Amino acid sequence: MRDFLPEDVRRRQYVIDIVRRVYERYGFEPLETPALENIETLTGKYGEEGNQLIFKVLKRGEGASSGEADLALRYDLTVPLARVVADNRGKLPRFFKRYQIQPVWRADRPARGRFREFYQCDVDAIGSTSPVVEVEMIAAVCDVLQALGFSDFVVQINHRELLTALLSSAGIDASKHGDALVAIDKLDKIGADGVAADMLARGIARESAEAALEKSQAAAGNLSREFFAFDPAGAAAAANLAEIVRLCENTAAAGRLRFTPRLARGLSYYTGAIMEIAVEGIGSLGGGGRYDGLIGMFAGEQIPACGFSLGLERILVVMGERTMFPPQVAEHSGPDVMLTIFDDEFTGRCLELATELRAADLRVEIFPESTKRGKNLNKALKYASERKARFIAIMEEDELATNEVKLRNTATREQERIPQRDLASRLRPSNPEPRTSNRAPRTSDDE
Amino acid sequence: MRDFLPEDVRRRQYVIDIVRRVYERYGFEPLETPALENIETLTGKYGEEGNQLIFKVLKRGEGASSGEADLALRYDLTVPLARVVADNRGKLPRFFKRYQIQPVWRADRPARGRFREFYQCDVDAIGSTSPVVEVEMIAAVCDVLQALGFSDFVVQINHRELLTALLSSAGIDASKHGDALVAIDKLDKIGADGVAADMLARGIARESAEAALEKSQAAAGNLSREFFAFDPAGAAAAANLAEIVRLCENTAAAGRLRFTPRLARGLSYYTGAIMEIAVEGIGSLGGGGRYDGLIGMFAGEQIPACGFSLGLERILVVMGERTMFPPQVAEHSGPDVMLTIFDDEFTGRCLELATELRAADLRVEIFPESTKRGKNLNKALKYASERKARFIAIMEEDELATNEVKLRNTATREQERIPQRDLASRLRPSNPEPRTSNRAPRTSDDE
Repeated sequence: MRDFLPEDVRRRQYVIDIVRRVYERYGFEPLETPALENIETLTGKYGEEGNQLIFKVLKRGEGASSGEADLALRYDLTVPLARVVADNRGKLPRFFKRYQIQPVWRADRPARGRFREFYQCDVDAIGSTSPVVEVEMIAAVCDVLQALGFSDFVVQINHRELLTALLSSAGIDASKHGDALVAIDKLDKIGADGVAADMLARGIARESAEAALEKSQAAAGNLSREFFAFDPAGAAAAANLAEIVRLCENTAAAGRLRFTPRLARGLSYYTGAIMEIAVEGIGSLGGGGRYDGLIGMFAGEQIPACGFSLGLERILVVMGERTMFPPQVAEHSGPDVMLTIFDDEFTGRCLELATELRAADLRVEIFPESTKRGKNLNKALKYASERKARFIAIMEEDELATNEVKLRNTATREQERIPQRDLASRLRPSNPEPRTSNRAPRTSDDE
Repeated sequence: MRDFLPEDVRRRQYVIDIVRRVYERYGFEPLETPALENIETLTGKYGEEGNQLIFKVLKRGEGASSGEADLALRYDLTVPLARVVADNRGKLPRFFKRYQIQPVWRADRPARGRFREFYQCDVDAIGSTSPVVEVEMIAAVCDVLQALGFSDFVVQINHRELLTALLSSAGIDASKHGDALVAIDKLDKIGADGVAADMLARGIARESAEAALEKSQAAAGNLSREFFAFDPAGAAAAANLAEIVRLCENTAAAGRLRFTPRLARGLSYYTGAIMEIAVEGIGSLGGGGRYDGLIGMFAGEQIPACGFSLGLERILVVMGERTMFPPQVAEHSGPDVMLTIFDDEFTGRCLELATELRAADLRVEIFPESTKRGKNLNKALKYASERKARFIAIMEEDELATNEVKLRNTATREQERIPQRDLASRLRPSNPEPRTSNRAPRTSDDE
């Protein structure tokens, strides 16, 4: 688990602000749920392996000595959403479109780029089976990535019913579909021979494995109802996908979609279209799909749903590596100005000045110790540079007498003397260069 | 524990954004720490009662069956800060000024207005003993409250060393100071007789109790070094407080400070000035003080510190009761426009239009189901009003033929027909009233 120091928080906040703004343009509303859920809400929802990775919280009070757990930390944002929808029937609008950006916790062994606390960034639309839902969601995700500066991504898309049709037609029993999907999903990494071998190892006959691969590859260029005519559900799925792909051309997702018959997605709850954002040389930045059954497990009636989860942590890493943060985020400039206090008599005037500048929405820091004594002015200059202050303002006896201030640019070391009343307008970021200036003498700590 | 539905999230976000903006003007930087800390980091820091309220997390993997805990949920933001400062020696600037707005967890019995998960909003300055630190912190807190719209608050201020001097001079043994402070802190609620009785019950002699009360009341009008001349530490504390109060007059805290000798604050770690925000009829909205010993428990060397915690949950409740949220937050308007789809042929054009409007930074929702069939147009109108859409845009055959759109104001029910290309400029919030309009016929679900 990680601490986020100021520059980390700023980068995360920059990305989260863009995600929020774009999702709100698409009519999604913010939701937040508590970190702790009742343990029964979470157990049994993530498979056997998932169960092991849930952080469980000990009972308090009288039950404390039992060593039993009654609460657990949020493991994803989808199960809490399903619970909220069930808890708030009648209070939520007919179609509930929400986004949620919060941490989740998984007791994985820590590894490079994997953390036990990490943020998920989910968007879900509850209540409609219309393909417009998938289209709007894909468009929103593409819009977010484009707003963040990504240009080299595609949206791989497939449909769970197409996968089922292909596997059944290859003679693979429904009980082995899960195994077959795991193998096919690795096609890019281990090649056709590798996939066939993997299927064989999982107890799928060689002929079936080869047939499944062949059909999957043939399907890649053939997203048509006719190609899947052998299976009515598959044909309907193909028509659904073709419509989604066609309609996406009218949105921010234009040109991004790739029908990818081998795309399987790990989670078992998907029932319809599934999609994944792929970036060449990087891998996935997120994925999602339609899941019309899950909400019903909580709400007691079937409620259709479709969701997408952006890989926020991965996006942050890639944006850092590719230097995609704008300069004011990547190299945050710290305060607009740091004021120094010559000695105690000057403190009141210095605070007054700071109050004026802050009222003008400037970021102002005061070096809290008198600079008259010892080497404190050098310490203040060093601290101003550590804190990346744009300017340092020095008032000593002369300046106090004339209501002026020595203003020093911490980057260029240029220094000017200006009236105190001009300080606010001089410091406004739109006017960053000194009007007249002369180079300040170096001080001993400047090196 | 609570779910925050969209309107809750918006109110919280509004307050948090103001807090952030003001604190950044004062040179405070954002910090975030993980929800889980090692259990040893937290135990023993919050007293015996606090220990009982910590949520403890079961070991995973091989230790899972032991019923033992190795991690615990963050209980406040001060101890994690102390750990971060100790962990990052050399990486943080000489004076580390951070704000942190994150949830904490306490296993309290739930009560009205008290939650087991709640946000804290802390600001701390590490590394300086200068009274400028207290002044800047008090000013920042006052600035935040004023920016939120509070005008009727005062900042009560006292000093731990003053309390110690008063109690010792009343003949109360140092071992009973904690008990005495708890009693004195209740003066407003139970009166002088109640406090004397409470002290007696805690084993403090009647004469001492009365003397302490008398001295405390006499001190109220006498914040001078002379008044505390009987105790050197008390005299220094009085001078320190007087300077803080005087300097605050040059800041956003001007006129707010009240020397309050009975102010005690619960936490034992305070060593210097202590303060609390009080609102008539409401009580405390937050408090803080100087604690020069706590960081040293983690860092292994004495590091001075001063902090303030705003009661975010309390502030939200009071702002709601006093209707202090601006209208766009209190009654969020939902999307700028909801587009309807007449039938499947129209979907592409409708998505195109939505894409254009979103590129113009408008919030657009599409009612996902065709309105041609059955009563779907009425359902769409009802949904638009539930979602508080400002406008609903209807395109049927006529409009598609002429590239127009029927635009209906959901509040006034006024309807006009305008070219599709004018929609974006028409919807901009700065231009909310129709230029020409005629009242639309009511539909059957409108009542």
